[in-house]
Amino acid sequence: MKARARWAETHLHHRFDDPSLLELALTHRSASKLNNERLEFLGDAFLNFTIAKRLYALRPEDAEGDLSRARASLVNQATLADIARAIGVDSELVLGRGELRSGGAQRAAVLADALEALIGAVLLDGGNAPAEKLIDELYAERFRHLPESADLKDPKTRLQEWLQGRGLTLPAYTVDSVRGREHEQVFTVVCEVEQKDARTIGRGRSRRLAEQEAAAAMLAELTRDGE
Amino acid sequence: MKARARWAETHLHHRFDDPSLLELALTHRSASKLNNERLEFLGDAFLNFTIAKRLYALRPEDAEGDLSRARASLVNQATLADIARAIGVDSELVLGRGELRSGGAQRAAVLADALEALIGAVLLDGGNAPAEKLIDELYAERFRHLPESADLKDPKTRLQEWLQGRGLTLPAYTVDSVRGREHEQVFTVVCEVEQKDARTIGRGRSRRLAEQEAAAAMLAELTRDGE
Repeated sequence: MKARARWAETHLHHRFDDPSLLELALTHRSASKLNNERLEFLGDAFLNFTIAKRLYALRPEDAEGDLSRARASLVNQATLADIARAIGVDSELVLGRGELRSGGAQRAAVLADALEALIGAVLLDGGNAPAEKLIDELYAERFRHLPESADLKDPKTRLQEWLQGRGLTLPAYTVDSVRGREHEQVFTVVCEVEQKDARTIGRGRSRRLAEQEAAAAMLAELTRDGE
Repeated sequence: MKARARWAETHLHHRFDDPSLLELALTHRSASKLNNERLEFLGDAFLNFTIAKRLYALRPEDAEGDLSRARASLVNQATLADIARAIGVDSELVLGRGELRSGGAQRAAVLADALEALIGAVLLDGGNAPAEKLIDELYAERFRHLPESADLKDPKTRLQEWLQGRGLTLPAYTVDSVRGREHEQVFTVVCEVEQKDARTIGRGRSRRLAEQEAAAAMLAELTRDGE
């Protein structure tokens, strides 16, 4: 048996009927026009569904927003890349020469995409059951230690809830300026809570990120006095 | 048999073992704290996966970007609301009094969410097979008349491809101004193609929308002379 097939049996718990699917899932677009991007599309969709199903069952008390946030924390690029590294996807990747030299095998995006493509390959090769089992194995630890709903909320949401809990009106966000050329622009946003006479500033690569920064600063400001 | 169960057999092709799931899927949050939002989360994930799987098989030549765009056109709110209306979801909805009076049963968001929740309910009640069959029935016509990949591309992508096809450099987008208070802000973006000495302006509720407007104007400008 080939080394790669052995790796798949050990770490994906699957023996491929069609080994070319395994090869394809590990092939980055820098190496070939025939690459893992289509499989990634399929694997990503199956992963999102499977995680949704597990969270629905594991968290019967969660509202839809909590479920969405919990899923986002489980399928984001950083988490997927961590899982990919843990099973040694980096050593199995097929990369183009340039990508290989510039350290592509360690890039989070490359690893995350390959992991989703591998899930897609197992799905196509064996059907839903082995792909679902693979996801359960990859996420076993994370399912046991799911983060608290409150910890997953972004600063804008937390600020809003903090204010509502005290009967205060919601903050106002205004874009103060946008500077720099495309792809390097910096948004500056002002967050104001009138009733507290408080005003904070946030900066970021997008309006959304700048607002989150401003909200985080506001939360820090309002809770400074031990409230 | 109850009227609602009969409706489900006719239009969802499913007889519920647990009729409370059907009830829940049709209950808008305006009517009860126990509503269809969690089922919608689940149904949305299964719908996205199933459409991804069908497109993967139906369009073997499509790149990942084409598959993504084709899926987006099939699962967007307007399409889901159309499908929901076609099977009479609007007459089955359980709405709060205010939502009912203000015409909530015809709102696209309400209908789209309920349709996804119904898919989630069939999935929970009967497993993958009946939920997949339901999606195949709902989308039968649309699967037969899938849009061309090129028609699904947004103006920025089409402009980029038009320029690249002629060996021209890519356009530059710059935010010119952001006016108005939050939730009413208008972005003004300038699109420039230096080699053609062309400059267009777009406005929109977000930077992305303003850029798309500017790109559409640029495409119109550049192709005006019969090119």
